[in-house]
Amino acid sequence: MQDAAEIAEGIREGRRNALARMISWAENADPRFPAALASIYPRVGGSWRIGVTGPPGAGKSTLTNALAVELRRREKTVGILAIDPTSPFSGGALLGDRIRMEDRTSDPGVFIRSMASRGSHGGLARAAVDACDAMDAFGFDAVVVETVGVGQAEYDVVGAADTVVVVLCPGAGDGIQAMKAGILEVADVLVVNKADVDGADRLMLDLSEAVHTRSIRREGREAEWEVPVIAATATKGEGVEKLLEHVEAHRRFLEGGDLSEMRRRKRVQQVRRVVDERLDEELWGPRGYAERADSGLRKSATPYDVAEEILAAILGNGMETQ
Amino acid sequence: MQDAAEIAEGIREGRRNALARMISWAENADPRFPAALASIYPRVGGSWRIGVTGPPGAGKSTLTNALAVELRRREKTVGILAIDPTSPFSGGALLGDRIRMEDRTSDPGVFIRSMASRGSHGGLARAAVDACDAMDAFGFDAVVVETVGVGQAEYDVVGAADTVVVVLCPGAGDGIQAMKAGILEVADVLVVNKADVDGADRLMLDLSEAVHTRSIRREGREAEWEVPVIAATATKGEGVEKLLEHVEAHRRFLEGGDLSEMRRRKRVQQVRRVVDERLDEELWGPRGYAERADSGLRKSATPYDVAEEILAAILGNGMETQ
Repeated sequence: MQDAAEIAEGIREGRRNALARMISWAENADPRFPAALASIYPRVGGSWRIGVTGPPGAGKSTLTNALAVELRRREKTVGILAIDPTSPFSGGALLGDRIRMEDRTSDPGVFIRSMASRGSHGGLARAAVDACDAMDAFGFDAVVVETVGVGQAEYDVVGAADTVVVVLCPGAGDGIQAMKAGILEVADVLVVNKADVDGADRLMLDLSEAVHTRSIRREGREAEWEVPVIAATATKGEGVEKLLEHVEAHRRFLEGGDLSEMRRRKRVQQVRRVVDERLDEELWGPRGYAERADSGLRKSATPYDVAEEILAAILGNGMETQ
Repeated sequence: MQDAAEIAEGIREGRRNALARMISWAENADPRFPAALASIYPRVGGSWRIGVTGPPGAGKSTLTNALAVELRRREKTVGILAIDPTSPFSGGALLGDRIRMEDRTSDPGVFIRSMASRGSHGGLARAAVDACDAMDAFGFDAVVVETVGVGQAEYDVVGAADTVVVVLCPGAGDGIQAMKAGILEVADVLVVNKADVDGADRLMLDLSEAVHTRSIRREGREAEWEVPVIAATATKGEGVEKLLEHVEAHRRFLEGGDLSEMRRRKRVQQVRRVVDERLDEELWGPRGYAERADSGLRKSATPYDVAEEILAAILGNGMETQ
């Protein structure tokens, strides 16, 4: 049984098994994680964090892989966290083409880790950010977190990164239509993958028009970041160099402005996730209020009546004294 | 400005505009909703609630429409709540083919209402259940709630129904693969829509094998519900009669067993949603802890340190006295 100090020491010394262990702690909400994080926290902040998302089938894994290759070509080290879609009920990860990426693990400058996306509300994003913190403290130049962008939980994960890359491809069905609006608004860089496929030009045009009117005003800055739309064919490595240049440009844009402010704002979200997760356990775990709710409902009270009672018990003394 | 008593009276008298107003209150978390609900609560419980979900493009709207037609043919009244997918960021509903369904509103035995799915965690399911309660008290024989099943929030909505119908169709892309596992486990009845399309037989076979090993053991009963797999072509109304027969069979199955227990268990979830939603507002609304989190982080504390402080403030006096 390893303790937090030992793992933190291992990370400072660059031992990959210590990093793997710490990420497992993040994933399992292990009580040793907070102490380990506190111990390496001064080292957090050196990595550039890139979030990659998009609908299923857009080629995110291939693009992430190509991005890693390009980063290595530039002699940058890279940690990759791949969030695999999971049933909220079964809890098992669907690995799929993730296995292909594991080929790269023979390179000591690359670290790849999968994490199962569970059905929990805040748990996934909390764990993903914790894992990125661990990889960041380990010293990777870039940390890439990749997720399938089909829900709020996934936006939440990539939204914690410094630069959010959204990957779309032509003709991936009507699901995309529904997601596009939300996806566009989290994007710092847009990639149209499978650029050699029919409909790619049209998609590029549509996206360029859409982002033109939605350039993001960064807090505390006059300047606006105009979201670039890039064509890529990840399977051939085409467009990846250009993508990385735009990521770098976005980095310079933020570094010239309110990067630390933005990072702290995103970190407040992590505080919120930790608070919400713990509170959820307190309120609805085995020692929580579920039984009281059940007995309240037996008396034909409405859910609101019962909720009112429970809220009074929670907030009664605590919050009002704030 | 109408008050809760007036709206409740309107619902008891069968006025559709009162019902529409009450559903708007549910959607907007209007403070008048709880009192209105309390006033009509004795009338809640007569409707059979059917949840319909499935991936985008599976034909859920068409099937729901056909289901309504079949219910009307049997002289049953039906209330429909359609949850439209929305960007978690833009907040606007994508209506699409929803408009077609509105044709049926000339029939006084049918009531159709759309609700925008927002990005909020518990808000959507809470509002949907509240809306179903209002339709239930209004006196519809059946209440159908339809949602696009691409995330935990959507499963949460349909999971509150008595009978969950999951609609799939052949060849709707790789997204389905990822969702299937989770979707299968919420299903009480499975429908393969577009049964005349290539691959439908294969999908029927795959699903039949998958559910065979996953028949659901209901609490407090020896018997198990074997999830039926039904072929349908909703555009032609084919298979819809059969679907309704299976829904009725599922109803008899539950009524012969632990229906009230199951409904109360699902209602505890609603209590939880109300508590979580209010708590979220208290903790992270304008008068909450966001600023304290920000100032904690400025002192280089980790998110866990800051969360610990906030949790102590919340739980300090309240929870420990429980």
